[in-house]
This record gives sequence, C-alpha cells and structure tokens, in this order.
Amino acid sequence: MEELLNRLPFNKFLTAEEKEILQRSAFVHHYDKGAFIHSSERECLGMLFVISGEIRTYLLSEEGREITLFRLYSDDLCVLSASCVISQISFDTQMTAPKDTDVLIIPADVIAMLKEKNIYVNCFLYELATERFSDVMWAMQQILFKRLDQRLATFLIEESERTGSEMILMTHEQIAQHIGSAREAVARMLKQFANDGLVELKRGTINICDTDGIKNLQ
Amino acid sequence: MEELLNRLPFNKFLTAEEKEILQRSAFVHHYDKGAFIHSSERECLGMLFVISGEIRTYLLSEEGREITLFRLYSDDLCVLSASCVISQISFDTQMTAPKDTDVLIIPADVIAMLKEKNIYVNCFLYELATERFSDVMWAMQQILFKRLDQRLATFLIEESERTGSEMILMTHEQIAQHIGSAREAVARMLKQFANDGLVELKRGTINICDTDGIKNLQ
Repeated sequence: MEELLNRLPFNKFLTAEEKEILQRSAFVHHYDKGAFIHSSERECLGMLFVISGEIRTYLLSEEGREITLFRLYSDDLCVLSASCVISQISFDTQMTAPKDTDVLIIPADVIAMLKEKNIYVNCFLYELATERFSDVMWAMQQILFKRLDQRLATFLIEESERTGSEMILMTHEQIAQHIGSAREAVARMLKQFANDGLVELKRGTINICDTDGIKNLQ
Repeated sequence: MEELLNRLPFNKFLTAEEKEILQRSAFVHHYDKGAFIHSSERECLGMLFVISGEIRTYLLSEEGREITLFRLYSDDLCVLSASCVISQISFDTQMTAPKDTDVLIIPADVIAMLKEKNIYVNCFLYELATERFSDVMWAMQQILFKRLDQRLATFLIEESERTGSEMILMTHEQIAQHIGSAREAVARMLKQFANDGLVELKRGTINICDTDGIKNLQ
C-alpha cells in the first residue's frame, strides 16, 4: 500500500499525518471486465487511481445513448468520481471498466478532508479537473465537427493500398500534414486506434492490425 | 479603476503590492456589438472581467460551424481567454460580443505572474476553469441528447427569464448559434411553435404567448 500511495501525484504535498490517514482509509478494488464503476447519481465513490486496466468515462442520455468523454489508464487519477467533493462540478458522468481493472479508491470523505486542509491538494484537484475539461473538449470537437477518426482511417487504408503494405512508414507530423490536422491530434487518435487494437505503434511506423476495423470507421 | 478591481472575486487574495501591479496594468476595453474578442490561436489576451454587456464563447469548426459553449455577463470572469497561462487548457475557443460590451482586461503576463506567486489566485483560476467545464458539459448534453423542440423551449424560457420580457429580440440565426442547431431547423421549429399558439413571430422578434405550454415541452 505504501508503494502504491507513493505513486499518487499529490503524495508529495501531504504531511506525515495526512499520509497516515490515507494509508488507513484507501483500499484496492478489482472490477471485472465490463463492470460498472460509478454513476454520480447513485453515490459518491471518491477519488480513483488506476493501478492497472482502464476506466471509460461517458455521458448517458435518457434514451440510453452513450458518449465517451475520455479513458483513463494505469497511473491516471479520476476526479469526476469525487464530484460530490467539488461543488463546481455539477454534471453527472458514468464509468465502466472495459477490461479487468484494479483501482485504488480514496473515499470521498477522506479526499474532502484533504481538500479542505491542504491547499496544494485543493489546487491539484482543480488542475486535474481542468485537464479533464481539455479531454472532453477534444472529444466534443471530434463528435461535433471533425470526425478525425474517419479522416485518419481513410488515410491509413489508402496509404496501405498504395504501398501494398500494412506497415506505414510515416511520422505523426507527416500524417497530420496529409489529412490537414495537427500532430497532437493525430498522435492522440493513433493512440486511441492502438488501444482499440486497430494498429500497433512503433517509432516512425504504424502497423495495421485490423484492416476491417479501420475500414468500418470510414 | 480601484472600485472596478474591488469587484474582482480574487481581489481579496492579493497582497498590497499585487493590487498595485494590477492597478497599473489592467485596462478597460470597449467592444462594439458583433465585435470579435478573442481566438486562442491568434493571441493570448489575458483574463477578462465583464463590466457590462456579454461575451459569447464558442467552438468553430473548420467548415465555419459554430457551437456556443457558454455566455458570460456582468461581473463574470473569463479564464479561457488566458488559456496560454494555464497549461492544462489545450483547446481553442472563440469569443465575440453579441452586444456593446465593456471589459476589464488583465494582461496575460500579469495574470501569469499572479498565478505563479499567489497560490490562492492559482487555485481560483482552476476553480473557475472547472466551473466552465460544468457549463460546457451542460451545453454538450443539450446539443447531443435533447430534441430540438426541448432545446428551443429551454432557450426561450431562459432568455425570457433573463431579460424579464416575453419579447425575444433575436434572429433565427442567432438562436441557432445559441442552441447549436441550424437556422433552417430553428425557423421550422419556431413556425411549428407559432402554429401551436406558443409564440408569435415577427421580423427579428419572437413573442412568447403561452409560457406554460413552452415549459411543458422541456
């Protein structure tokens, strides 16, 4: 547990006493693949630290439509599951585990106490929320405007057909120029493709693993 | 100017020296109705405090489509115009003045200095960004999930409550931008509302005839 708490990015701000409280109250929880982790309406779980696996955060419409906002991986912290502690967060989100996932849970009352007593923790929580804000804006632009995934999928298929190879020897920068996007956006989308098992990324090359999956994105 | 600076919600956190710097560097700027205020790509304007009027913040697609994220009114602070100062904000937004607007501008380098030197200001900026996160999530849910008649009804009721009038002085194009829809779709829906006796349409104005009827649509 101590080793685990040392991995927390805000651990360095804590006093010895606060570290002790954390050590007594935080606990590890395992979620099976497909398990539901959190809904703001139901409960206030607290802060989640992904030890291994993945958390998908999404919006759920009244008709049951889902919109993925972002995904968290190993060593990421989830602040939206502690939204009850942060009055400025007034929206509801849902979270599931798309694969077997181990999570360190810091209960809501403990994170609330740390937030109140320690201004560095307080600041850190809002910084984290602001990072998620950027993640969500990126998702929103994808959904509303860009369909960068379509453009990237089309490019990868065309390039693969053109060269007769599933290895695409290009940098993210070069691809971005081809499809009229930004390097960061292409890098992010390729990472998502890799997480979905569509491609394998190596330095300067993209290996297509699932041609049909990429074609389906177009 | 001193009276104006006293209206800033983070003024209470500042030292005498910091207040003096602010007093020397902040300035008032007038934007005519329709004027463009800010684009993240162009410049880093700094922090904006709305003295009077309105700032509309929106996303702009490559094809020129606009999605309104939120609106700021008198005494609201705009943090996204200082996104260069906050590394966690990695997205671009645009801002315009839908009416004659006076704004207090705190230059980016000054807000950067305050953020670095004063942890309360630092925290405050991220709290503000988190508030805008909630505003954007609300807009996103409206756009992605709600039916157009619901969105239009909500907009008409809110605008009527905000202005204290049943006369809404806006074009269909302006309303479409507000609710993230197309002018044609809004025009059609308003015509349907008019046929149902909910509103009366005249050039450039919408007169609410049946507030309860519109509320029932929400």
